[in-house]
Amino acid sequence: MTTFSAPQRSQSTSPTPAAPPADSRDRVSQFMQGIQDEICQGLEALDGGGTFQQDQWERPEGGGGRSRVIKQGAVFEQGGVNFSEVWGEQLPPSILVQRPEAAGHGFYATGTSMVLHPHNPYIPTVHLNYRYFEAGPVWWFGGGIDLTPYYPNLADVQHFHRTLKATCDRHQANYYPGFKQWCDEYFYLKHRNETRGVGGIFFDYQDGLGQLYRGPNETGEAAQYSQQVGDLPQRSWEELFAFVSDCGQAFLPAYVPIAEQSKDRPYSDHERNFQLYRRGRYVEFNLVYDRGTIFGLQTNGRTESILMSLPPLVRWEYSYQPEPDTPEQQLYDVFLKPQDWLSDGFKL
Amino acid sequence: MTTFSAPQRSQSTSPTPAAPPADSRDRVSQFMQGIQDEICQGLEALDGGGTFQQDQWERPEGGGGRSRVIKQGAVFEQGGVNFSEVWGEQLPPSILVQRPEAAGHGFYATGTSMVLHPHNPYIPTVHLNYRYFEAGPVWWFGGGIDLTPYYPNLADVQHFHRTLKATCDRHQANYYPGFKQWCDEYFYLKHRNETRGVGGIFFDYQDGLGQLYRGPNETGEAAQYSQQVGDLPQRSWEELFAFVSDCGQAFLPAYVPIAEQSKDRPYSDHERNFQLYRRGRYVEFNLVYDRGTIFGLQTNGRTESILMSLPPLVRWEYSYQPEPDTPEQQLYDVFLKPQDWLSDGFKL
Repeated sequence: MTTFSAPQRSQSTSPTPAAPPADSRDRVSQFMQGIQDEICQGLEALDGGGTFQQDQWERPEGGGGRSRVIKQGAVFEQGGVNFSEVWGEQLPPSILVQRPEAAGHGFYATGTSMVLHPHNPYIPTVHLNYRYFEAGPVWWFGGGIDLTPYYPNLADVQHFHRTLKATCDRHQANYYPGFKQWCDEYFYLKHRNETRGVGGIFFDYQDGLGQLYRGPNETGEAAQYSQQVGDLPQRSWEELFAFVSDCGQAFLPAYVPIAEQSKDRPYSDHERNFQLYRRGRYVEFNLVYDRGTIFGLQTNGRTESILMSLPPLVRWEYSYQPEPDTPEQQLYDVFLKPQDWLSDGFKL
Repeated sequence: MTTFSAPQRSQSTSPTPAAPPADSRDRVSQFMQGIQDEICQGLEALDGGGTFQQDQWERPEGGGGRSRVIKQGAVFEQGGVNFSEVWGEQLPPSILVQRPEAAGHGFYATGTSMVLHPHNPYIPTVHLNYRYFEAGPVWWFGGGIDLTPYYPNLADVQHFHRTLKATCDRHQANYYPGFKQWCDEYFYLKHRNETRGVGGIFFDYQDGLGQLYRGPNETGEAAQYSQQVGDLPQRSWEELFAFVSDCGQAFLPAYVPIAEQSKDRPYSDHERNFQLYRRGRYVEFNLVYDRGTIFGLQTNGRTESILMSLPPLVRWEYSYQPEPDTPEQQLYDVFLKPQDWLSDGFKL
């Protein structure tokens, strides 16, 4: 992969974003909890059998959360939807590298995150996370949503991306192309030379200061996004909050129809075994690359909530190769590479 | 945990070890291959059903290896025994931090590594790795062996440790106490507050220069070993090679009787489910903490050989807790904490 230099913040913009509204923390926290409620209700309705069980927890250093888990539902083998809101004296070094202005300041962080592992191999696994930080002079929004199918279904993938694009386009024309690419790069397993799935959108450090991207990205490569997609205009806190709110609300319409359509589709041990094998990649990504997971594990986070994202049953198999001319082969050839799913010219 | 400062190399010793014999690489490489052969033969005899399949591979940058896998044997659900021998222009930064004298020099590395996942939950999983490096003015041996039971069996654990202690004691009286403690610290899951299993021995950077330990250790804490166990005398390359050879040969007598004794012991879904759940910890350790695994994945190693260590089937369960007064509870209470297994006063 080519190495690009990280774009520098342009000289014409202010070095720190304008202060957020006085009630910013309350508003974002309420929104994050509301999204958790809404998503859990929508998923219970879809599942038709299982219900979420909640664990409320407190963090000794400040804050806490509510973890909700559905186990052995009719549709979902396991799923977790977390809300957390934490504060403390200093952000960890891994974040301070990206936001040096926050050094020496207390911080506040809130977010919602979710991973769903369906029983049926024809239903994709899905992940969502939205988060908000304040620390001294800086604040930012981050997060995204991405889809990991086990079996190829172009209509599903296009529905998912189309829903996200429509949400993005209501706010900024270059959100979708930039955040779609960022997602493909973030959810990438270098050691497998595979994307985790068919992507979606991902962004971080959005403080409205006019760049699509600031600082080195998570996989250690510098950002290409701004160079290819162009800089964003300056955006206010309100505009970014409205965008993230809209993203959160896009989850159910993006995912539920996909799950609904395949939940009663028959499958055999063959498909189930392939699903269990592919779930191994989810584990590999989350434990080897995912910044949030590793950071949480290494800094005394609530382990059970962090590892709720891991699948309930997983298989590894030495030197597995899909058979030629099978759906499994097509998954590898097409669906585990970055693709321009919504382009007119795209076809299988 | 208390933070200790890493002991500095004492001023009275030479800054680099004496040169190894002219045929050092050949001798160690032959030994590593011999151990691989011997272990595979011993395990096939034990298994009585499965055989190892070999993949020979080459590394474009120099060297290669032979990976051997047993799948769905009578005793072993999956196991891998790897030999590799690689060379190149420069060691990776993660090792150069520990061995700055090697910077700017080509390197040579050879090793054998093994993980076995038995079917029967009453047979422990076992891991072995021995390795040898040369790079410019420095060379060193490293490695170890450790046992991960699913069900408590003190006699097994004591047999394992007694065999290792006898091997160590033939060479240096403070090898076993120092390397046993190093093992407990290295194979430790901070985010679970658990050891990976009942330990064994582990050491790294053994160049004969008189310390038990040099440099910051893998878990980021400084070394306590030398402080508690005392410095080692200076040892020659021949003495260290003889020690590592002896360790390699200790594997079959340390492990085979344990597996032999439990291989026909009946078990139910309850024990199997607990085994699958506990295997999750193996995955967590290898992907989150294990230096060799992470280094290999991030530097274009042969992924299938590196991840041969992962179990064939694994379960995660949100908020699992063992029932009181069960063998599972005893595993957590006693066997997943560092213990002085061989002390006269130790009892359950």
